Amino acid sequence: MKADGIGPGQIIRRKQNGALEYQHDELTVEEPLEIRVGNKTVATTMRTPGHDEELAAGFLVSEGIVKLGDRIQKFSRPKSARNRENIIVLDLERGKKVKLNSTQRFGTISSSCGLCGKESIAAIRQNFPPIRSTSFRIDIETLISLPAKLRDKQSDFARTGGIHAAGIFDARGDALIVREDIGRHNAVDKAVGRAFLDRKLPLDRHLLLVSGRASFEIVQKALAAGIPIVASVSAPSSLAVEFARESNQTLVGFLRPPQFNIYSHVERVILD
Amino acid sequence: MKADGIGPGQIIRRKQNGALEYQHDELTVEEPLEIRVGNKTVATTMRTPGHDEELAAGFLVSEGIVKLGDRIQKFSRPKSARNRENIIVLDLERGKKVKLNSTQRFGTISSSCGLCGKESIAAIRQNFPPIRSTSFRIDIETLISLPAKLRDKQSDFARTGGIHAAGIFDARGDALIVREDIGRHNAVDKAVGRAFLDRKLPLDRHLLLVSGRASFEIVQKALAAGIPIVASVSAPSSLAVEFARESNQTLVGFLRPPQFNIYSHVERVILD
Repeated sequence: MKADGIGPGQIIRRKQNGALEYQHDELTVEEPLEIRVGNKTVATTMRTPGHDEELAAGFLVSEGIVKLGDRIQKFSRPKSARNRENIIVLDLERGKKVKLNSTQRFGTISSSCGLCGKESIAAIRQNFPPIRSTSFRIDIETLISLPAKLRDKQSDFARTGGIHAAGIFDARGDALIVREDIGRHNAVDKAVGRAFLDRKLPLDRHLLLVSGRASFEIVQKALAAGIPIVASVSAPSSLAVEFARESNQTLVGFLRPPQFNIYSHVERVILD
Repeated sequence: MKADGIGPGQIIRRKQNGALEYQHDELTVEEPLEIRVGNKTVATTMRTPGHDEELAAGFLVSEGIVKLGDRIQKFSRPKSARNRENIIVLDLERGKKVKLNSTQRFGTISSSCGLCGKESIAAIRQNFPPIRSTSFRIDIETLISLPAKLRDKQSDFARTGGIHAAGIFDARGDALIVREDIGRHNAVDKAVGRAFLDRKLPLDRHLLLVSGRASFEIVQKALAAGIPIVASVSAPSSLAVEFARESNQTLVGFLRPPQFNIYSHVERVILD
């Protein structure tokens, strides 16, 4: 027993009947990941370890630092650093350098928040053109089937709310990728990063579903990946709605079957 | 009607019975706030407008940039900037300058994430000593009464999950401050900032309750304000638990009455 009365890996749980008991804890791991391109640190984010390559790739796509046609030559860990498992190094094809313009980042800065280092929303908007296609559509029955499908692919712990999930689905409701992370943004970056590494971007015939709220940054990350429909189990923010309207994205919120709200570009949902 | 079939301020809602109808939307507003100390930009965070002074003050306290004994001379808005309502300028007492050391921030960087610009967790830990007092305690009945009290003080929309809340309570379960924001961290910064402006820091006989998860940054912000007990309605992360153990803070998670978990320093909860 430690000085605080709770041993390593232990918690005290109060049960429904009021009884107290020691239990083994089951915690979401949260550790920093420093993302470097070559020898340049681009960002540090708090993440759930695992799928680090995807997270790094997705983050760089979301930020517009890596373009859809770019290739990542290799991922590595620094040889000598102390916390080498919390650092990932990307090398772009043929020694291509990262160009960080004035709206982007320098130094160790972010929590994958989509806004870090940026002067304004306007600057973010300029990075990615609106979605072009409107031919991709989804029907209501498929749409309302998605939250259950996302939950089926989550871990037990994720279902308790300890961790966020992001899933990319096609028009038939089949999951292409589901990823989890303690950070909402990271879960999206991991899913987008997997698609990037599989050369499946732009995902212009897919839908992104997130387990939490749809903030502005989530919609922006979807735009970077070319995703025309974003759905969220909880609320969208006003800026997320405004952004989705301008970027020709369909935004669905409070997707709690059989109910949901549509905030923008309803034409991609087959309502009859 | 706009081109996307949904007018300004409108959404399409699918109801329980499957019927579709247009409704007025009720959205959480999310806009950037740039925090300046004198003429230096310290951070930009996405926040729900309102209580900007508190948010700025709480953020600077959380970051260790403003010390508990410091005084803020005045808050102002820049005279000529275009988005002046999204910029807040603090002037410290007697023209005191901000010292940003190497573990802190420069430029426009953060989303109030607590890690931005920082080289490591170790650097963050160094900024604040552990809580000293262990005499402050809370009994179970008071503890499990808090989520309902927090909800009572939230707006209707907050209860639907569209926005986060943070409340500071005393040992009798009376709320000192409750604040809401689209960002979990911002809600805590606003509550702590209010206490700072009222010269009530350190809050060494109070408890912080957050409506969402307890990440590392939440526990760190509580430490900066001297708060010995942090409770969360959802899951804590592993780093939050580790941090709370080291900083002599009691961490309660999954506070869903009558159930809860205690992750660290159980001695502050009166269990019998």
